[in-house]
Amino acid sequence: MNTQNRTDIAKLGEFGLIEHLTADITPMNKETTTGIGDDAAILNFGNDEEVLVSTDMLMEGVHFDLTYVPLKHLGYKATIVNLSDIYAMNGTPKQITVSVALSQKFCVEDMEDLYAGIKLACQEYNVDIVGGDTTSSLTGLAISITAIGTARKGSAVKRNTAKETDLICVSGNLGAAYMGLQLLEREKIATAGKDIQPDFAGKEYIIERQLKPEARKDIIEMLRKENVVPTSMIDISDGLSSELMHICKQSNVGCRIYEEHIPIDYQTAIMAEELNMNVMTCALNGGEDYELLFTVPIADYEKVASMKDVRLIGHIVGENLGTAMITRDGVEMELKAQGWNLNSNN
Amino acid sequence: MNTQNRTDIAKLGEFGLIEHLTADITPMNKETTTGIGDDAAILNFGNDEEVLVSTDMLMEGVHFDLTYVPLKHLGYKATIVNLSDIYAMNGTPKQITVSVALSQKFCVEDMEDLYAGIKLACQEYNVDIVGGDTTSSLTGLAISITAIGTARKGSAVKRNTAKETDLICVSGNLGAAYMGLQLLEREKIATAGKDIQPDFAGKEYIIERQLKPEARKDIIEMLRKENVVPTSMIDISDGLSSELMHICKQSNVGCRIYEEHIPIDYQTAIMAEELNMNVMTCALNGGEDYELLFTVPIADYEKVASMKDVRLIGHIVGENLGTAMITRDGVEMELKAQGWNLNSNN
Repeated sequence: MNTQNRTDIAKLGEFGLIEHLTADITPMNKETTTGIGDDAAILNFGNDEEVLVSTDMLMEGVHFDLTYVPLKHLGYKATIVNLSDIYAMNGTPKQITVSVALSQKFCVEDMEDLYAGIKLACQEYNVDIVGGDTTSSLTGLAISITAIGTARKGSAVKRNTAKETDLICVSGNLGAAYMGLQLLEREKIATAGKDIQPDFAGKEYIIERQLKPEARKDIIEMLRKENVVPTSMIDISDGLSSELMHICKQSNVGCRIYEEHIPIDYQTAIMAEELNMNVMTCALNGGEDYELLFTVPIADYEKVASMKDVRLIGHIVGENLGTAMITRDGVEMELKAQGWNLNSNN
Repeated sequence: MNTQNRTDIAKLGEFGLIEHLTADITPMNKETTTGIGDDAAILNFGNDEEVLVSTDMLMEGVHFDLTYVPLKHLGYKATIVNLSDIYAMNGTPKQITVSVALSQKFCVEDMEDLYAGIKLACQEYNVDIVGGDTTSSLTGLAISITAIGTARKGSAVKRNTAKETDLICVSGNLGAAYMGLQLLEREKIATAGKDIQPDFAGKEYIIERQLKPEARKDIIEMLRKENVVPTSMIDISDGLSSELMHICKQSNVGCRIYEEHIPIDYQTAIMAEELNMNVMTCALNGGEDYELLFTVPIADYEKVASMKDVRLIGHIVGENLGTAMITRDGVEMELKAQGWNLNSNN
């Protein structure tokens, strides 16, 4: 390792580091249509279907806490996270590979539980497990999943193609998974060393959003059925602000979203109140929602406005106007991406 | 985690665990030609090129020791390990995704070094980096790479298609990477806390085999040029014995290899002598050679016999005859797979 010239990684942040390390990478193979920088890469091997590839790694103690995350749920979620990336390209996931590194504290039955969750997600989303690697780790559990999917040639939706006047849409509601995490963390501390079970009555929804998220296959299918092709799309894994800023930065545009239109479930709001947190901050910056954020041409207004579980939250503007939210009292507030940093403080 | 019914993972071993966890997985998508169980999965999205996918995860303290492995070499090797799997399918690697998890001890310059090695390997093998994930880890470094490659329809070579009377061939020589590892481990102990540099004079080759292995693209190209299509193929990552047993088990055949034909470099032999180890055990069970092990029809004898850097080491026999090596003094010795267990004892 370097002993001189040490730049702290926190100085660049997650996105900065990836950008820094990959800035000089340009595809050499004609089969590589789109490389780094989107939810999934787009590959074309000379036919009508393009191949999408996406990968994610989850580390114990960073991305999950086995004190309250059952291994089966973890396997399910680790899979969903990757399938969500393929849907966010307007694709259909077909296969995954699964790599697992585990320390001696785990037994075969633990791995069975983990795989039961992975297999369940694969069944529900019609995806094949086609390979992987199982190896040992000195401490804890690491899971790396790569998802492969397809999209009809030219139909994959990227992040860098949002246009001025496009409408900004979001599926489901935001901040629930983050509130679920806060609740689990609170109960973990409250019940530590005591022989009591936490009481989650009335909070089942936010717990489920954290422990058993789903990928929005239904939204992709609805968009196809209604002939709506998003101009850009991304899945919300690091929070709405962060994802919207990815779209705007890569598309060279700005945006205005409206606080009053951000969808928030009532359980999320109640939990935020209870924890004395600002619910809008949670909706904007809380991660792991795995909802879809997409833009559509203004001509599709009526179609998306009537779609179940889709909300119009704003519109795309010129780059010079920046990225901002209009609060309920009419103030323009600049969006900030917190992403990783927020999550790693949990 | 499970508190009752705990089966120790060592009881199943690496291969046993994978087999156990994946036994009930059967492909659902018509695009999945071959799933788990080979060097890479084979996917077909409806054209003349099949898509190969392979993945590997490397964990600090298990697969590499940063005391003597420079990060650039590690990046190079982590890439090669995956490309080797694509070549072992008779394919051509085209893309990789790279996921890295790192703890706070690493700085940006460290990641630059790691990526420099990854990029160098990609340049030399004409492979694109198309995505990945960078995240934090509580302890140490984890690298997970997925390689994607292509093979003309029907030309991918699997493990389960070796036939009785086929000749068994191996590229390069065996045991060198393992001897390199032993030497590095010895010098690590010898120089610990002292301000001296280890002297590797006369042992450069085994060090290089450990720190900077190559994938045998040249062998694949030579086989194509000579119109030799192996009946089965695998890359040697866990040792000749273990890989040969994979081929035999999956093809329902047995084998006879001859001790006198196993290729061993003189530096490997000298190092084994110096360390008082049995050089043949190292050649049979030492991992990380990344040479190709393949079988060809007996009709190709003359072609492979004259190929540079390819050695005929034996032949395939009926399953009932088992898997064995004939020693120099004519004794039949049953082959044993050590694989992971051997390496994890280092």
